Amino acid sequence: MPETHLKVKLLTMTPHALATIYAACKQCYSSENAPRIFAQAIKGIPSKQKQEDFVKNIVASGHESVIEHVSFTFAISGISRALSHQLVRHRIASYSQQSQRYVKAKNFYYIIPPTISKDPELKAIFKKTMKEIQKTYDIIVEKLEARGIKGEKAHQDARFILPNACETKIVVTMNCRSLLNFFALRCCERAQWEIRALANTMLKICKEKLPAVFAEAGPKCERLGYCPEGRFSCGRKPLKNEFLAKE
Amino acid sequence: MPETHLKVKLLTMTPHALATIYAACKQCYSSENAPRIFAQAIKGIPSKQKQEDFVKNIVASGHESVIEHVSFTFAISGISRALSHQLVRHRIASYSQQSQRYVKAKNFYYIIPPTISKDPELKAIFKKTMKEIQKTYDIIVEKLEARGIKGEKAHQDARFILPNACETKIVVTMNCRSLLNFFALRCCERAQWEIRALANTMLKICKEKLPAVFAEAGPKCERLGYCPEGRFSCGRKPLKNEFLAKE
Amino acid sequence: MPETHLKVKLLTMTPHALATIYAACKQCYSSENAPRIFAQAIKGIPSKQKQEDFVKNIVASGHESVIEHVSFTFAISGISRALSHQLVRHRIASYSQQSQRYVKAKNFYYIIPPTISKDPELKAIFKKTMKEIQKTYDIIVEKLEARGIKGEKAHQDARFILPNACETKIVVTMNCRSLLNFFALRCCERAQWEIRALANTMLKICKEKLPAVFAEAGPKCERLGYCPEGRFSCGRKPLKNEFLAKE
Amino acid sequence: MPETHLKVKLLTMTPHALATIYAACKQCYSSENAPRIFAQAIKGIPSKQKQEDFVKNIVASGHESVIEHVSFTFAISGISRALSHQLVRHRIASYSQQSQRYVKAKNFYYIIPPTISKDPELKAIFKKTMKEIQKTYDIIVEKLEARGIKGEKAHQDARFILPNACETKIVVTMNCRSLLNFFALRCCERAQWEIRALANTMLKICKEKLPAVFAEAGPKCERLGYCPEGRFSCGRKPLKNEFLAKE
Repeated sequence: MPETHLKVKLLTMTPHALATIYAACKQCYSSENAPRIFAQAIKGIPSKQKQEDFVKNIVASGHESVIEHVSFTFAISGISRALSHQLVRHRIASYSQQSQRYVKAKNFYYIIPPTISKDPELKAIFKKTMKEIQKTYDIIVEKLEARGIKGEKAHQDARFILPNACETKIVVTMNCRSLLNFFALRCCERAQWEIRALANTMLKICKEKLPAVFAEAGPKCERLGYCPEGRFSCGRKPLKNEFLAKE
Repeated sequence: MPETHLKVKLLTMTPHALATIYAACKQCYSSENAPRIFAQAIKGIPSKQKQEDFVKNIVASGHESVIEHVSFTFAISGISRALSHQLVRHRIASYSQQSQRYVKAKNFYYIIPPTISKDPELKAIFKKTMKEIQKTYDIIVEKLEARGIKGEKAHQDARFILPNACETKIVVTMNCRSLLNFFALRCCERAQWEIRALANTMLKICKEKLPAVFAEAGPKCERLGYCPEGRFSCGRKPLKNEFLAKE
Repeated sequence: MPETHLKVKLLTMTPHALATIYAACKQCYSSENAPRIFAQAIKGIPSKQKQEDFVKNIVASGHESVIEHVSFTFAISGISRALSHQLVRHRIASYSQQSQRYVKAKNFYYIIPPTISKDPELKAIFKKTMKEIQKTYDIIVEKLEARGIKGEKAHQDARFILPNACETKIVVTMNCRSLLNFFALRCCERAQWEIRALANTMLKICKEKLPAVFAEAGPKCERLGYCPEGRFSCGRKPLKNEFLAKE
Repeated sequence: MPETHLKVKLLTMTPHALATIYAACKQCYSSENAPRIFAQAIKGIPSKQKQEDFVKNIVASGHESVIEHVSFTFAISGISRALSHQLVRHRIASYSQQSQRYVKAKNFYYIIPPTISKDPELKAIFKKTMKEIQKTYDIIVEKLEARGIKGEKAHQDARFILPNACETKIVVTMNCRSLLNFFALRCCERAQWEIRALANTMLKICKEKLPAVFAEAGPKCERLGYCPEGRFSCGRKPLKNEFLAKE
């Protein structure tokens, strides 16, 4: 029943991502066929640099529909159910999450927030409560099973006792456009620290795999040039109102 | 810090729901204008019965896009975070959920599963654990605040200790098509009891407000005529394989 | 077979739109129930002005999910199939469009672009071609029907001859968030004139009906403070690059 | 300006499609990590046959969310704008379509419906009208350009004259779940012949690439066991009402 930590693994992604976006976009504005543009692009015609510049420009001008053709699939674990509840609110995405109904929580792993973890006293209280919750969970499952309520029927009710801190695992697929939006919202200082850590880890992978799309990605202020959060701003960028007033 | 129970309130819905669907659909197949069809339909031309029969037929034949023009907005409370985590997985919907970051969980309400509630011993254990969790939560908030980590910064970390059982409140808007899908999945015996109770309550309201669309709504077996769940079937309807074999 | 023009009619919308958004949003940040907030809001507690200011602030800071609870349903006619093909690319919306398969195009109406309409010679050529297309359409339908290919089977093939200019009618439902995005893209000078005219007409209605959400709506430059379109910019606002460089 | 025909090319798809779905799904019901399940699955543990059987079962029981992790990207050309207008109504998909604003229609290609093509007289009339439309298009562009309305400004208005028959090219990305729905609707006899031909061609490719998901795919009657289309049924399967009455 130990503490655990964020793990993010890129399971798979659309192959020839740059060429796919390049071909899909180029065909919109020319009489050429996408398959021919694609075949050439893969061979480096035009050069990878030119393809990247083209795609960067498109993304910078806000024409994001072409980047939807490329998706990333991440396997994420070591996250709390507090995080996953926020994550699945992103609706342009696909999720497969480990079930607390079908998987028994024996010796469940959990996430400890850093503010608690760095305070020995709080950490001890936190861990003690986790242990007690596990004990109660085990008792409930045992007693329900003794009454003939078994397997998922027992787990699904015993889990009412389980904390937000409980680890969950999830496979997530998002296309590049949805990822840009995810990063804009969740790399922001206003996002909760755990989902921000996840977003930053995913962003790092995306930047490495497809810089043409993700080189400039990040919290919304990075893309806007200012912060729209008003009095909640972290101060990293000028406030929207102040910024626009300069005009 | 008492136990609480499901409450569902229809906050608002598209007015003239039947006439809206009728007009949107009729215009697809005729040279008439939707505004004229709509104006007549509201006056009872053709009769409400005829409008209902027309819409029922359309829904029965699986042409569901026209019913998307009508939406229902529900205010739901007295539900667990276990339920809300499932609920927000329905992506063709809009949600506004009470935040555990911005709202402090003082004397939090919680949901007790019936299997636990009806067993005095289990119920006592359950309630005792809830009390201990509340106590730990309060200690964490207090200690974090003493270190200068205040308000949402404190709540968002203290809440890691809060259980799935914790009450949440949420406003949900779904259009009729998404509602039909929600009922198909969540009124099914395989759905977890709590979300099934919610779905049944919402369905009752929908049937009353718009029978033309919802009179035949319910678990997927009701609409299919058979159960696709194989060995997990509740037995209410014949299994898909058996049923199709009869052909 | 005459020329026709854009007509937009608001068929229906979510009632108590302001109170709905206000209650959905307020509940996120307080321990109060949405139904109670809603009931008070309808009675003018707090004042309509305060509710509007609150919602305006939320929208300005980019937190748009709460405005999804309110939808508008428009009946649109007098538009070309060129426009409708662009319109239905907006995916967070519901459409019911008059069918060219089920509705015969006898004496079809059409839209003439202003650049053509204001040049008598071009206008004459345009109208003459429309007439010839109608004639060919009628011949095809007649000959197909003579061969036993009737009704929709005849129309669906004869319509291959019909021009983009051909009038279509469509019922469209969008929630406020999708409408803001629609206006950002389609009120822009870069949008095609016909869909821009439609967007401006819809925007006018929305501003009147729900100023708290739509008072500041319009082309994306209005909301951003600059234009991201680079060399395609109309010049109404400074370019993004120039603007951000000032920082 | 010749006739043209449907061409479909699979541009790209999610690699390790079977293992991706298998791992995403398995993790929901076990305590194992998706990355480990995925790594094993790629190595053939369990056997490909067992992975396929598992996924087939999941799809047959209607639990389709796991197949969303896999997407297909098709480059489609030789289709009419009549078809593409229907195609883009499928909202859970990504599209990049050749623009009639940015690409001049010089010697445009077109699609002739088979009912017209096989009748020499009708075919001649059809082709003659296409020629006249091209001529008018060219005149409009020329005259607009003479008045200083150039490039896209000219094309976007001249195209009002262009017919539905006009060829378009489009890149389409859909995930497997959206594809199953697309096939259910568009492989049906009630679908228009052109989009049915497209759907059948795409289905053939999907069956070859990912039989575990698509082996049983096809028109909705194939999956339901009966036809819900009532009096519009093609008769291939028994009617829903008749079929359910047998129960």
